[in-house]
Amino acid sequence: MSAQPFFWSARVYWEDTDAGGVVYHTNYVKFMERARTEWLRAKGFEQSVLQQQGLVFAVYAMQIQFVKPARLDDALDIGVQLIGCRRASFSVGQRILNPANGVELCKGEFEIACLDSARFRPCPIPTALLMEIQR
Amino acid sequence: MSAQPFFWSARVYWEDTDAGGVVYHTNYVKFMERARTEWLRAKGFEQSVLQQQGLVFAVYAMQIQFVKPARLDDALDIGVQLIGCRRASFSVGQRILNPANGVELCKGEFEIACLDSARFRPCPIPTALLMEIQR
Amino acid sequence: MSAQPFFWSARVYWEDTDAGGVVYHTNYVKFMERARTEWLRAKGFEQSVLQQQGLVFAVYAMQIQFVKPARLDDALDIGVQLIGCRRASFSVGQRILNPANGVELCKGEFEIACLDSARFRPCPIPTALLMEIQR
Amino acid sequence: MSAQPFFWSARVYWEDTDAGGVVYHTNYVKFMERARTEWLRAKGFEQSVLQQQGLVFAVYAMQIQFVKPARLDDALDIGVQLIGCRRASFSVGQRILNPANGVELCKGEFEIACLDSARFRPCPIPTALLMEIQR
Repeated sequence: MSAQPFFWSARVYWEDTDAGGVVYHTNYVKFMERARTEWLRAKGFEQSVLQQQGLVFAVYAMQIQFVKPARLDDALDIGVQLIGCRRASFSVGQRILNPANGVELCKGEFEIACLDSARFRPCPIPTALLMEIQR
Repeated sequence: MSAQPFFWSARVYWEDTDAGGVVYHTNYVKFMERARTEWLRAKGFEQSVLQQQGLVFAVYAMQIQFVKPARLDDALDIGVQLIGCRRASFSVGQRILNPANGVELCKGEFEIACLDSARFRPCPIPTALLMEIQR
Repeated sequence: MSAQPFFWSARVYWEDTDAGGVVYHTNYVKFMERARTEWLRAKGFEQSVLQQQGLVFAVYAMQIQFVKPARLDDALDIGVQLIGCRRASFSVGQRILNPANGVELCKGEFEIACLDSARFRPCPIPTALLMEIQR
Repeated sequence: MSAQPFFWSARVYWEDTDAGGVVYHTNYVKFMERARTEWLRAKGFEQSVLQQQGLVFAVYAMQIQFVKPARLDDALDIGVQLIGCRRASFSVGQRILNPANGVELCKGEFEIACLDSARFRPCPIPTALLMEIQR
Protein backbone atom coordinates (compact mmCIF):
# COMPACT_ATOMS: atom_id res chain seq x y z
CA MET A 1 0.00 0.00 0.00
CA SER A 2 1.48 3.31 -1.04
CA ALA A 3 -1.19 5.46 0.59
CA GLN A 4 0.12 8.47 2.49
CA PRO A 5 -0.31 8.48 6.27
CA PHE A 6 -2.83 11.09 7.42
CA PHE A 7 -2.30 13.02 10.66
CA TRP A 8 -4.84 14.83 12.80
CA SER A 9 -4.39 16.70 16.08
CA ALA A 10 -6.42 16.54 19.27
CA ARG A 11 -6.13 17.56 22.88
CA VAL A 12 -6.67 15.69 26.16
CA TYR A 13 -9.50 17.11 28.32
CA TRP A 14 -10.73 16.20 31.82
CA GLU A 15 -13.36 13.85 30.30
CA ASP A 16 -10.58 11.73 28.75
CA THR A 17 -8.67 11.15 31.99
CA ASP A 18 -9.29 8.80 34.90
CA ALA A 19 -8.42 8.70 38.59
CA GLY A 20 -5.04 7.17 37.70
CA GLY A 21 -4.13 10.67 36.44
CA VAL A 22 -3.79 9.56 32.81
CA VAL A 23 -6.03 9.00 29.77
CA TYR A 24 -8.47 6.12 30.36
CA HIS A 25 -7.44 3.24 28.08
CA THR A 26 -10.58 3.09 25.92
CA ASN A 27 -10.39 6.82 25.23
CA TYR A 28 -7.29 6.38 23.06
CA VAL A 29 -9.57 4.28 20.85
CA LYS A 30 -12.02 7.20 20.66
CA PHE A 31 -9.21 9.51 19.54
CA MET A 32 -8.34 6.99 16.84
CA GLU A 33 -11.97 6.86 15.67
CA ARG A 34 -12.11 10.66 15.45
CA ALA A 35 -8.93 10.61 13.33
CA ARG A 36 -10.40 7.99 10.95
CA THR A 37 -13.50 10.19 10.58
CA GLU A 38 -11.30 13.21 9.73
CA TRP A 39 -9.26 11.09 7.30
CA LEU A 40 -12.45 10.14 5.43
CA ARG A 41 -13.68 13.75 5.58
CA ALA A 42 -10.34 14.97 4.14
CA LYS A 43 -10.94 12.57 1.26
CA GLY A 44 -14.42 14.01 0.70
CA PHE A 45 -16.60 11.49 2.54
CA GLU A 46 -18.84 12.30 5.51
CA GLN A 47 -20.23 9.30 7.34
CA SER A 48 -23.54 11.07 8.04
CA VAL A 49 -23.99 11.31 4.25
CA LEU A 50 -22.95 7.66 3.75
CA GLN A 51 -25.48 6.70 6.42
CA GLN A 52 -28.25 8.50 4.52
CA GLN A 53 -27.15 6.43 1.52
CA GLY A 54 -27.61 3.29 3.61
CA LEU A 55 -23.96 2.58 4.46
CA VAL A 56 -22.13 2.45 7.76
CA PHE A 57 -18.55 1.50 8.64
CA ALA A 58 -18.14 -0.83 11.62
CA VAL A 59 -14.97 -1.94 13.40
CA TYR A 60 -15.09 -5.75 13.58
CA ALA A 61 -11.63 -6.33 15.07
CA MET A 62 -8.94 -4.22 16.65
CA GLN A 63 -5.69 -4.67 18.47
CA ILE A 64 -4.15 -1.90 20.49
CA GLN A 65 -0.86 -1.48 22.31
CA PHE A 66 -0.61 1.17 25.00
CA VAL A 67 3.01 2.31 25.16
CA LYS A 68 3.11 5.47 27.29
CA PRO A 69 0.34 7.39 29.03
CA ALA A 70 -1.04 10.76 27.91
CA ARG A 71 -2.21 13.28 30.49
CA LEU A 72 -4.53 16.26 30.90
CA ASP A 73 -3.75 19.11 28.47
CA ASP A 74 -1.44 16.96 26.32
CA ALA A 75 -1.60 17.57 22.59
CA LEU A 76 -1.81 14.41 20.49
CA ASP A 77 -1.03 13.65 16.86
CA ILE A 78 -3.09 10.75 15.60
CA GLY A 79 -2.07 8.95 12.44
CA VAL A 80 -4.14 6.87 10.01
CA GLN A 81 -2.52 4.66 7.39
CA LEU A 82 -4.37 2.30 5.08
CA ILE A 83 -2.73 -1.14 5.25
CA GLY A 84 -5.12 -3.18 3.14
CA CYS A 85 -8.47 -3.07 1.43
CA ARG A 86 -10.92 -5.57 0.06
CA ARG A 87 -14.30 -5.24 -1.65
CA ALA A 88 -16.31 -4.73 1.56
CA SER A 89 -13.68 -4.06 4.20
CA PHE A 90 -10.36 -2.37 4.85
CA SER A 91 -7.56 -2.30 7.43
CA VAL A 92 -5.86 0.71 8.93
CA GLY A 93 -2.85 1.12 11.17
CA GLN A 94 -3.03 3.97 13.64
CA ARG A 95 -0.55 5.65 15.96
CA ILE A 96 -0.87 8.33 18.61
CA LEU A 97 2.25 10.46 18.98
CA ASN A 98 3.32 13.24 21.30
CA PRO A 99 3.78 16.10 18.79
CA ALA A 100 6.43 17.77 20.95
CA ASN A 101 8.92 14.90 20.69
CA GLY A 102 7.44 12.32 18.31
CA VAL A 103 7.26 9.70 21.06
CA GLU A 104 4.71 6.97 20.35
CA LEU A 105 2.02 6.68 23.03
CA CYS A 106 -0.28 4.12 21.49
CA LYS A 107 -0.65 2.14 18.28
CA GLY A 108 -3.23 -0.17 16.82
CA GLU A 109 -4.75 -1.94 13.85
CA PHE A 110 -8.41 -1.83 12.95
CA GLU A 111 -10.43 -4.08 10.65
CA ILE A 112 -13.40 -2.14 9.32
CA ALA A 113 -16.36 -3.49 7.39
CA CYS A 114 -18.74 -1.61 5.14
CA LEU A 115 -22.28 -2.61 6.14
CA ASP A 116 -25.75 -1.70 5.03
CA SER A 117 -27.04 0.46 7.86
CA ALA A 118 -30.42 -1.28 8.19
CA ARG A 119 -29.48 -4.95 8.46
CA PHE A 120 -25.73 -4.71 9.22
CA ARG A 121 -24.84 -6.99 6.30
CA PRO A 122 -21.54 -6.58 4.35
CA CYS A 123 -21.85 -4.20 1.45
CA PRO A 124 -19.32 -3.24 -1.26
CA ILE A 125 -17.37 -0.09 -0.45
CA PRO A 126 -18.38 2.64 -2.94
CA THR A 127 -15.80 2.69 -5.75
CA ALA A 128 -15.05 6.41 -5.42
CA LEU A 129 -14.30 5.99 -1.72
CA LEU A 130 -12.19 2.88 -2.34
CA MET A 131 -10.10 4.81 -4.86
CA GLU A 132 -9.65 7.79 -2.58
CA ILE A 133 -8.51 5.89 0.50
CA GLN A 134 -5.83 4.11 -1.57
CA ARG A 135 -4.24 7.38 -2.66
CA MET B 1 -47.59 14.58 43.42
CA SER B 2 -47.94 11.52 45.62
CA ALA B 3 -45.75 9.28 43.49
CA GLN B 4 -43.28 7.13 45.44
CA PRO B 5 -39.59 7.85 44.97
CA PHE B 6 -37.80 5.09 43.08
CA PHE B 7 -34.24 4.09 44.01
CA TRP B 8 -31.65 2.29 41.92
CA SER B 9 -28.06 1.34 42.75
CA ALA B 10 -24.90 1.75 40.73
CA ARG B 11 -21.16 1.64 41.20
CA VAL B 12 -18.36 4.03 40.23
CA TYR B 13 -15.82 2.54 37.77
CA TRP B 14 -12.54 3.91 36.34
CA GLU B 15 -14.42 5.23 33.28
CA ASP B 16 -16.52 7.51 35.53
CA THR B 17 -13.58 9.20 37.24
CA ASP B 18 -11.23 11.94 36.09
CA ALA B 19 -7.68 13.05 36.89
CA GLY B 20 -9.02 15.03 39.85
CA GLY B 21 -9.53 11.62 41.52
CA VAL B 22 -13.33 11.96 41.64
CA VAL B 23 -16.31 11.33 39.36
CA TYR B 24 -16.25 13.66 36.33
CA HIS B 25 -19.16 16.11 36.70
CA THR B 26 -21.16 15.10 33.64
CA ASN B 27 -21.02 11.43 34.65
CA TYR B 28 -23.37 12.05 37.58
CA VAL B 29 -25.89 13.06 34.91
CA LYS B 30 -25.33 9.71 33.17
CA PHE B 31 -26.04 7.87 36.43
CA MET B 32 -29.27 9.87 36.73
CA GLU B 33 -30.28 8.93 33.18
CA ARG B 34 -29.66 5.24 33.89
CA ALA B 35 -31.87 5.50 36.99
CA ARG B 36 -34.71 7.14 34.99
CA THR B 37 -34.45 4.30 32.47
CA GLU B 38 -34.71 1.72 35.29
CA TRP B 39 -37.63 3.66 36.83
CA LEU B 40 -39.53 3.43 33.52
CA ARG B 41 -38.55 -0.22 33.12
CA ALA B 42 -39.83 -0.98 36.64
CA LYS B 43 -43.14 0.53 35.55
CA GLY B 44 -43.23 -1.70 32.49
CA PHE B 45 -41.87 0.61 29.79
CA GLU B 46 -38.71 0.01 27.77
CA GLN B 47 -37.53 2.96 25.72
CA SER B 48 -36.32 0.71 22.90
CA VAL B 49 -39.95 -0.45 22.53
CA LEU B 50 -41.27 3.13 22.74
CA GLN B 51 -38.76 4.09 20.04
CA GLN B 52 -40.10 1.35 17.76
CA GLN B 53 -43.53 2.88 18.39
CA GLY B 54 -42.16 6.22 17.22
CA LEU B 55 -41.65 7.89 20.62
CA VAL B 56 -38.54 9.16 22.36
CA PHE B 57 -38.03 11.04 25.62
CA ALA B 58 -35.65 14.00 25.48
CA VAL B 59 -34.29 16.15 28.31
CA TYR B 60 -34.94 19.78 27.35
CA ALA B 61 -33.76 21.42 30.58
CA MET B 62 -31.87 20.33 33.66
CA GLN B 63 -30.34 21.89 36.73
CA ILE B 64 -27.83 20.03 38.84
CA GLN B 65 -26.11 20.76 42.12
CA PHE B 66 -22.92 18.89 42.93
CA VAL B 67 -22.66 18.63 46.71
CA LYS B 68 -19.91 16.12 47.49
CA PRO B 69 -17.67 14.08 45.20
CA ALA B 70 -17.96 10.33 44.63
CA ARG B 71 -14.84 8.26 44.02
CA LEU B 72 -13.71 5.00 42.40
CA ASP B 73 -15.48 1.93 43.82
CA ASP B 74 -18.15 3.99 45.61
CA ALA B 75 -21.65 2.55 45.62
CA LEU B 76 -24.38 5.05 44.72
CA ASP B 77 -28.12 5.13 45.35
CA ILE B 78 -29.89 7.15 42.71
CA GLY B 79 -33.41 8.39 43.33
CA VAL B 80 -36.12 9.37 40.85
CA GLN B 81 -39.23 11.25 41.96
CA LEU B 82 -41.93 12.58 39.65
CA ILE B 83 -42.57 16.24 40.48
CA GLY B 84 -44.97 17.19 37.72
CA CYS B 85 -46.48 15.98 34.50
CA ARG B 86 -48.27 17.50 31.56
CA ARG B 87 -49.70 16.08 28.35
CA ALA B 88 -46.40 15.88 26.48
CA SER B 89 -43.77 16.40 29.18
CA PHE B 90 -42.91 15.66 32.79
CA SER B 91 -40.51 16.77 35.51
CA VAL B 92 -38.47 14.61 37.83
CA GLY B 93 -36.33 15.38 40.83
CA GLN B 94 -33.27 13.19 41.27
CA ARG B 95 -30.74 12.65 44.04
CA ILE B 96 -27.56 10.61 44.31
CA LEU B 97 -26.88 9.35 47.83
CA ASN B 98 -24.05 7.46 49.47
CA PRO B 99 -25.90 4.28 50.57
CA ALA B 100 -23.55 3.76 53.52
CA ASN B 101 -24.53 6.97 55.31
CA GLY B 102 -27.35 8.57 53.30
CA VAL B 103 -25.23 11.63 52.52
CA GLU B 104 -26.41 13.50 49.43
CA LEU B 105 -23.74 13.78 46.72
CA CYS B 106 -25.70 15.37 43.91
CA LYS B 107 -29.25 16.48 43.14
CA GLY B 108 -31.07 17.78 40.11
CA GLU B 109 -34.29 18.47 38.28
CA PHE B 110 -34.98 17.36 34.73
CA GLU B 111 -37.64 18.55 32.28
CA ILE B 112 -38.39 15.77 29.83
CA ALA B 113 -40.44 15.98 26.65
CA CYS B 114 -42.13 13.18 24.77
CA LEU B 115 -41.21 13.57 21.09
CA ASP B 116 -41.94 11.71 17.92
CA SER B 117 -38.66 9.98 17.12
CA ALA B 118 -38.55 10.95 13.44
CA ARG B 119 -39.14 14.72 13.54
CA PHE B 120 -38.50 15.48 17.24
CA ARG B 121 -41.89 17.21 17.63
CA PRO B 122 -43.85 17.10 20.94
CA CYS B 123 -46.14 14.12 21.19
CA PRO B 124 -48.69 13.18 23.89
CA ILE B 125 -47.29 10.79 26.48
CA PRO B 126 -49.08 7.41 26.12
CA THR B 127 -51.93 7.31 28.68
CA ALA B 128 -50.83 4.01 30.24
CA LEU B 129 -47.33 5.39 30.84
CA LEU B 130 -48.72 8.67 32.21
CA MET B 131 -50.84 6.75 34.69
CA GLU B 132 -47.99 4.50 35.79
CA ILE B 133 -45.44 7.25 36.44
CA GLN B 134 -47.96 9.05 38.69
CA ARG B 135 -48.41 6.04 40.98
CA MET C 1 -19.16 42.23 33.39
CA SER C 2 -17.50 43.61 30.32
CA ALA C 3 -15.51 40.47 29.54
CA GLN C 4 -15.50 39.44 25.87
CA PRO C 5 -17.21 36.20 24.95
CA PHE C 6 -14.76 33.51 23.85
CA PHE C 7 -15.63 31.07 21.07
CA TRP C 8 -14.15 27.69 20.33
CA SER C 9 -15.03 25.15 17.61
CA ALA C 10 -15.61 21.43 17.85
CA ARG C 11 -17.07 18.63 15.79
CA VAL C 12 -19.62 15.91 16.57
CA TYR C 13 -18.21 12.34 16.29
CA TRP C 14 -19.87 8.92 16.60
CA GLU C 15 -18.92 8.77 20.30
CA ASP C 16 -21.04 11.88 20.98
CA THR C 17 -24.24 10.53 19.46
CA ASP C 18 -26.83 8.09 20.77
CA ALA C 19 -29.37 5.69 19.27
CA GLY C 20 -31.84 8.59 18.95
CA GLY C 21 -29.60 9.78 16.08
CA VAL C 22 -28.56 12.98 17.88
CA VAL C 23 -25.94 14.09 20.43
CA TYR C 24 -26.53 12.43 23.83
CA HIS C 25 -27.66 15.15 26.25
CA THR C 26 -24.74 14.99 28.68
CA ASN C 27 -22.24 15.27 25.84
CA TYR C 28 -23.21 18.91 25.20
CA VAL C 29 -21.94 19.49 28.75
CA LYS C 30 -18.62 17.87 27.79
CA PHE C 31 -18.30 20.22 24.81
CA MET C 32 -18.92 23.15 27.17
CA GLU C 33 -16.21 21.89 29.54
CA ARG C 34 -13.72 21.61 26.67
CA ALA C 35 -14.51 25.20 25.67
CA ARG C 36 -13.95 26.46 29.25
CA THR C 37 -10.59 24.67 29.25
CA GLU C 38 -9.64 26.36 25.95
CA TRP C 39 -10.86 29.74 27.29
CA LEU C 40 -8.53 29.39 30.29
CA ARG C 41 -5.70 28.17 28.04
CA ALA C 42 -6.19 31.19 25.74
CA LYS C 43 -5.75 33.36 28.84
CA GLY C 44 -2.53 31.56 29.71
CA PHE C 45 -3.70 29.04 32.29
CA GLU C 46 -3.44 25.27 31.94
CA GLN C 47 -5.40 23.28 34.50
CA SER C 48 -2.71 20.57 34.64
CA VAL C 49 -0.30 23.27 35.84
CA LEU C 50 -2.85 24.65 38.33
CA GLN C 51 -3.33 21.10 39.63
CA GLN C 52 0.43 20.76 40.23
CA GLN C 53 0.12 24.00 42.20
CA GLY C 54 -2.62 22.38 44.30
CA LEU C 55 -5.68 23.98 42.68
CA VAL C 56 -8.60 22.49 40.79
CA PHE C 57 -11.78 24.04 39.40
CA ALA C 58 -15.01 22.15 40.13
CA VAL C 59 -18.50 22.77 38.80
CA TYR C 60 -20.83 22.93 41.82
CA ALA C 61 -24.03 23.90 40.01
CA MET C 62 -25.20 24.05 36.42
CA GLN C 63 -28.39 24.62 34.51
CA ILE C 64 -28.71 23.67 30.88
CA GLN C 65 -31.39 24.17 28.25
CA PHE C 66 -31.37 21.92 25.21
CA VAL C 67 -32.92 23.85 22.34
CA LYS C 68 -32.20 21.92 19.14
CA PRO C 69 -30.32 18.68 18.56
CA ALA C 70 -26.88 18.40 16.96
CA ARG C 71 -26.03 15.38 14.79
CA LEU C 72 -23.06 13.37 13.56
CA ASP C 73 -20.53 15.48 11.61
CA ASP C 74 -22.05 18.79 12.74
CA ALA C 75 -19.62 21.59 13.47
CA LEU C 76 -20.29 23.45 16.73
CA ASP C 77 -19.30 26.88 18.01
CA ILE C 78 -19.14 26.92 21.78
CA GLY C 79 -19.16 30.23 23.63
CA VAL C 80 -17.87 31.08 27.10
CA GLN C 81 -18.79 34.36 28.80
CA LEU C 82 -17.88 35.33 32.35
CA ILE C 83 -21.02 36.50 34.15
CA GLY C 84 -19.69 36.94 37.68
CA CYS C 85 -16.73 36.27 39.87
CA ARG C 86 -16.03 36.14 43.54
CA ARG C 87 -12.92 35.40 45.61
CA ALA C 88 -13.11 31.60 45.31
CA SER C 89 -15.68 31.02 42.56
CA PHE C 90 -16.99 32.35 39.28
CA SER C 91 -19.99 31.99 36.96
CA VAL C 92 -19.98 31.53 33.22
CA GLY C 93 -22.72 31.53 30.62
CA GLN C 94 -22.22 29.17 27.71
CA ARG C 95 -23.90 28.66 24.37
CA ILE C 96 -23.52 26.10 21.61
CA LEU C 97 -24.28 27.48 18.16
CA ASN C 98 -24.49 26.02 14.69
CA PRO C 99 -21.71 27.99 12.94
CA ALA C 100 -23.44 27.72 9.55
CA ASN C 101 -26.51 29.72 10.58
CA GLY C 102 -25.92 30.96 14.14
CA VAL C 103 -28.84 28.92 15.48
CA GLU C 104 -28.58 28.23 19.21
CA LEU C 105 -28.57 24.51 20.04
CA CYS C 106 -27.91 24.60 23.77
CA LYS C 107 -27.21 27.12 26.52
CA GLY C 108 -26.27 26.95 30.15
CA GLU C 109 -24.86 28.56 33.24
CA PHE C 110 -22.11 27.06 35.37
CA GLU C 111 -21.03 27.89 38.92
CA ILE C 112 -17.40 26.96 39.36
CA ALA C 113 -15.42 26.83 42.58
CA CYS C 114 -11.68 27.00 43.03
CA LEU C 115 -10.69 24.18 45.38
CA ASP C 116 -7.49 22.87 46.84
CA SER C 117 -6.91 19.64 44.95
CA ALA C 118 -6.11 17.50 47.99
CA ARG C 119 -9.02 18.21 50.34
CA PHE C 120 -11.53 19.84 47.92
CA ARG C 121 -11.88 22.93 50.16
CA PRO C 122 -12.57 26.41 48.69
CA CYS C 123 -9.42 28.30 47.84
CA PRO C 124 -8.93 31.86 46.57
CA ILE C 125 -8.63 32.09 42.79
CA PRO C 126 -5.05 33.17 41.93
CA THR C 127 -5.07 36.96 41.37
CA ALA C 128 -3.46 36.79 37.93
CA LEU C 129 -6.12 34.35 36.74
CA LEU C 130 -8.91 36.43 38.28
CA MET C 131 -7.69 39.49 36.41
CA GLU C 132 -7.35 37.65 33.10
CA ILE C 133 -10.81 36.09 33.09
CA GLN C 134 -12.40 39.53 33.70
CA ARG C 135 -10.78 41.05 30.59
CA MET D 1 -4.97 -22.35 33.88
CA SER D 2 -7.76 -23.98 35.82
CA ALA D 3 -9.29 -20.72 37.09
CA GLN D 4 -13.08 -20.57 36.91
CA PRO D 5 -14.62 -18.04 34.53
CA PHE D 6 -16.37 -15.19 36.34
CA PHE D 7 -19.57 -13.68 34.96
CA TRP D 8 -21.10 -10.29 35.65
CA SER D 9 -24.27 -8.70 34.24
CA ALA D 10 -24.84 -5.22 32.86
CA ARG D 11 -27.39 -3.35 30.82
CA VAL D 12 -27.11 -1.13 27.74
CA TYR D 13 -28.22 2.50 28.31
CA TRP D 14 -28.60 5.46 25.93
CA GLU D 15 -25.06 6.63 26.80
CA ASP D 16 -23.62 3.36 25.42
CA THR D 17 -25.27 3.60 22.00
CA ASP D 18 -24.42 5.66 18.93
CA ALA D 19 -26.28 7.04 15.95
CA GLY D 20 -25.88 3.69 14.18
CA GLY D 21 -28.50 2.40 16.63
CA VAL D 22 -26.09 0.00 18.36
CA VAL D 23 -23.48 0.07 21.13
CA TYR D 24 -20.50 2.27 20.17
CA HIS D 25 -17.47 -0.02 19.66
CA THR D 26 -15.28 1.31 22.45
CA ASN D 27 -18.09 0.95 24.97
CA TYR D 28 -17.88 -2.85 24.84
CA VAL D 29 -14.35 -2.35 26.18
CA LYS D 30 -15.78 -0.29 29.07
CA PHE D 31 -18.19 -3.12 29.91
CA MET D 32 -15.23 -5.51 29.95
CA GLU D 33 -13.30 -3.21 32.31
CA ARG D 34 -16.28 -3.03 34.68
CA ALA D 35 -16.42 -6.84 34.72
CA ARG D 36 -12.70 -7.12 35.50
CA THR D 37 -13.22 -4.69 38.39
CA GLU D 38 -16.11 -6.83 39.73
CA TRP D 39 -14.01 -9.99 39.27
CA LEU D 40 -11.26 -8.49 41.45
CA ARG D 41 -13.85 -7.21 43.95
CA ALA D 42 -15.40 -10.71 44.17
CA LYS D 43 -11.93 -11.98 45.05
CA GLY D 44 -11.60 -9.39 47.80
CA PHE D 45 -9.59 -6.66 46.06
CA GLU D 46 -10.77 -3.09 45.47
CA GLN D 47 -8.62 -1.06 43.11
CA SER D 48 -9.19 2.14 45.11
CA VAL D 49 -7.54 0.36 48.07
CA LEU D 50 -4.72 -0.96 45.87
CA GLN D 51 -4.20 2.59 44.61
CA GLN D 52 -3.84 3.88 48.18
CA GLN D 53 -1.20 1.16 48.59
CA GLY D 54 0.61 2.58 45.56
CA LEU D 55 -0.48 0.03 42.94
CA VAL D 56 -2.52 0.39 39.76
CA PHE D 57 -3.41 -2.08 37.02
CA ALA D 58 -2.97 -0.83 33.46
CA VAL D 59 -3.99 -2.47 30.19
CA TYR D 60 -0.89 -2.47 27.95
CA ALA D 61 -2.33 -4.48 25.05
CA MET D 62 -5.73 -5.68 23.96
CA GLN D 63 -7.33 -7.34 21.00
CA ILE D 64 -11.07 -7.31 20.50
CA GLN D 65 -13.40 -8.96 18.02
CA PHE D 66 -16.86 -7.50 17.55
CA VAL D 67 -19.18 -10.31 16.48
CA LYS D 68 -22.74 -9.03 16.77
CA PRO D 69 -24.10 -5.65 17.89
CA ALA D 70 -25.88 -5.00 21.21
CA ARG D 71 -28.67 -2.43 21.37
CA LEU D 72 -30.46 -0.15 23.83
CA ASP D 73 -32.00 -2.04 26.78
CA ASP D 74 -30.11 -5.26 26.02
CA ALA D 75 -28.89 -7.23 29.02
CA LEU D 76 -25.29 -8.42 28.76
CA ASP D 77 -23.32 -11.17 30.48
CA ILE D 78 -19.64 -10.33 30.62
CA GLY D 79 -17.12 -13.08 31.31
CA VAL D 80 -13.60 -12.84 32.72
CA GLN D 81 -11.19 -15.78 32.55
CA LEU D 82 -7.56 -15.70 33.63
CA ILE D 83 -5.40 -17.12 30.82
CA GLY D 84 -1.94 -16.46 32.18
CA CYS D 85 -0.08 -14.68 34.92
CA ARG D 86 3.45 -13.60 35.55
CA ARG D 87 5.17 -11.78 38.40
CA ALA D 88 4.06 -8.26 37.38
CA SER D 89 1.37 -8.87 34.75
CA PHE D 90 -1.49 -11.16 33.80
CA SER D 91 -3.68 -11.97 30.80
CA VAL D 92 -7.46 -12.37 30.73
CA GLY D 93 -9.85 -13.54 28.08
CA GLN D 94 -13.24 -11.83 28.06
CA ARG D 95 -16.53 -12.47 26.32
CA ILE D 96 -19.80 -10.56 26.16
CA LEU D 97 -22.83 -12.81 25.73
CA ASN D 98 -26.53 -12.22 25.24
CA PRO D 99 -27.93 -13.89 28.40
CA ALA D 100 -31.20 -14.75 26.68
CA ASN D 101 -29.63 -17.09 24.11
CA GLY D 102 -25.91 -17.34 24.95
CA VAL D 103 -24.93 -15.76 21.63
CA GLU D 104 -21.45 -14.20 21.71
CA LEU D 105 -21.45 -10.49 20.89
CA CYS D 106 -17.83 -9.60 21.52
CA LYS D 107 -14.65 -11.23 22.76
CA GLY D 108 -11.17 -10.06 23.61
CA GLU D 109 -7.87 -10.61 25.33
CA PHE D 110 -6.23 -8.11 27.64
CA GLU D 111 -2.63 -7.87 28.85
CA ILE D 112 -2.57 -6.10 32.18
CA ALA D 113 0.46 -4.82 34.08
CA CYS D 114 0.78 -4.07 37.76
CA LEU D 115 2.42 -0.65 38.07
CA ASP D 116 3.41 1.62 40.90
CA SER D 117 0.82 4.39 40.76
CA ALA D 118 3.32 7.27 41.03
CA ARG D 119 5.87 6.48 38.34
CA PHE D 120 4.00 3.85 36.29
CA ARG D 121 6.85 1.33 36.60
CA PRO D 122 6.20 -2.46 36.71
CA CYS D 123 5.65 -3.76 40.23
CA PRO D 124 5.18 -7.33 41.51
CA ILE D 125 1.53 -8.31 41.87
CA PRO D 126 0.76 -8.76 45.61
CA THR D 127 1.04 -12.48 46.42
CA ALA D 128 -2.43 -12.73 47.98
CA LEU D 129 -4.00 -11.24 44.86
CA LEU D 130 -1.93 -13.48 42.58
CA MET D 131 -3.13 -16.55 44.49
CA GLU D 132 -6.78 -15.48 44.41
CA ILE D 133 -6.98 -14.75 40.69
CA GLN D 134 -5.55 -18.22 39.92
CA ARG D 135 -8.31 -20.02 41.81
